[in-house]
Amino acid sequence: MTTHNTARNQFVEVNGVRYAYRRFGKHNGTPLLLLPHFIATMDWWDPLLVDGLAETREVILFDNRGVGLSSGETPDRIATMAADVHAFIHGLGLARVDVLGFSIGGMVAQELALLYPDDVRKLLLVGTGPRGGEGMQEPKPDVVKALTEAGPDPKSARPFLFFSQSENGRTEAARFTARNAERTVDLDPGASMQTLQAQSEALGEWGRAASHTDYLARLRTLLHPTLVANGNDDIMVSTINSYILSQAIPKAELIIYPDSGHGALFQYAHLFVEHTNLFLDRAEI
Amino acid sequence: MTTHNTARNQFVEVNGVRYAYRRFGKHNGTPLLLLPHFIATMDWWDPLLVDGLAETREVILFDNRGVGLSSGETPDRIATMAADVHAFIHGLGLARVDVLGFSIGGMVAQELALLYPDDVRKLLLVGTGPRGGEGMQEPKPDVVKALTEAGPDPKSARPFLFFSQSENGRTEAARFTARNAERTVDLDPGASMQTLQAQSEALGEWGRAASHTDYLARLRTLLHPTLVANGNDDIMVSTINSYILSQAIPKAELIIYPDSGHGALFQYAHLFVEHTNLFLDRAEI
Repeated sequence: MTTHNTARNQFVEVNGVRYAYRRFGKHNGTPLLLLPHFIATMDWWDPLLVDGLAETREVILFDNRGVGLSSGETPDRIATMAADVHAFIHGLGLARVDVLGFSIGGMVAQELALLYPDDVRKLLLVGTGPRGGEGMQEPKPDVVKALTEAGPDPKSARPFLFFSQSENGRTEAARFTARNAERTVDLDPGASMQTLQAQSEALGEWGRAASHTDYLARLRTLLHPTLVANGNDDIMVSTINSYILSQAIPKAELIIYPDSGHGALFQYAHLFVEHTNLFLDRAEI
Repeated sequence: MTTHNTARNQFVEVNGVRYAYRRFGKHNGTPLLLLPHFIATMDWWDPLLVDGLAETREVILFDNRGVGLSSGETPDRIATMAADVHAFIHGLGLARVDVLGFSIGGMVAQELALLYPDDVRKLLLVGTGPRGGEGMQEPKPDVVKALTEAGPDPKSARPFLFFSQSENGRTEAARFTARNAERTVDLDPGASMQTLQAQSEALGEWGRAASHTDYLARLRTLLHPTLVANGNDDIMVSTINSYILSQAIPKAELIIYPDSGHGALFQYAHLFVEHTNLFLDRAEI
């Protein structure tokens, strides 16, 4: 059986961009497309989460334009990234997917569902927030410090950035780090400085948007069944933003996990997969 | 198989009070005790919810002191009701139960877990809030109006009070009302005026408490695994209170359901049972 650690890299060319992707799991209706976090490539996902999801559905990982094995230049606007995802979905010959967007990927997922509503069946927004959300104007000093100290190895900041600092949180962070090192073949390269700068610019434009109220009005027109999820103390995208998203999106369910942060979907991978299956598999409400 | 609609009334006497209860379901570890909403008796629960829960665990319904078939006078303080529940649990010869408290029952459940922590294994707080919570100082005018219009038949106000007013919400409210009329044998009498007045007084004292911040500090000492749940637009106990509870209680998970109000646990009975089973059956975190 193909897994996160054995799935081979595939490629599709759309609009002059060659997108790298991995596609595997059980053929069973609508595939689930995962949109990654800041500067992350396909290798940066958690095998426990991805393989758990792939047990009951097809999962598609991909590298954003200009990231990892995908060609081109990384865009500096969320809406442009959403247009890329739209092109990628149709480049694969798919009409409609379920979308799980994590962190910046959750912002891209929102714009995708708003700009290209027919592309999306159900939406999962994890560790993310609305345009101009609370505390999203700029990264918190702790976050900047952790990323600065990590230097050329930004992955190494994730135990601090994604997990609670309780004993339980630190144990789970170590397990996550170990799982994340399991894949050894066909790796994709880390993100370039251009990606880091462009995605930082995109995050800043999104977070500083003065049009927060207008944006919430836009979210009220988003009619996709949506699952919003996060840890109860996310130091990267404050948890209250998940509550705000769930109050604005008419068909949103909200799940907040205890003693966890931005990476709750990894920390509670088994439970998150169960919650996701209940959400994706039930008849629309 | 015994169900919500066929379970016979049983009685246990503790501290001079004769408590009515019904106990059924699958023997499978810790029983789940359900604490009812404002003036509600055992008959007021939703068979779909209760039987769903009883499929995998023993469920205990009971009438509070002075309510329905239980003797005595209804207390006018939440902490006194919690002391009654403590007595009732030990009256049954049980050392520890899981507790699902709904609405005022969720306030009683909080005090029970705080005052008698050894009585409780895991806690479910549904459609409820902390002492001095947001908008809990007094019932909202719409709520008072609906209860006044319902007059001697307060049950008839529940479709408005417990459900969203969308087409979907109204459909689900009608289904709930129909399910609630299914039990025809061994009914318990409705609540008395004394119960209504005493529970109103208890709700007022709880909601107007000036010591909100102190209370949140108390909740931070509550170490039980806890599931907090509500609808996304509860007009009785504002939904934000569920978020506040989940932020204060260290091991709290939060689930908010879409297009629903106070009665989300009835509207989404199947899903709520699945979420409850995932919560109650997993190893402690």
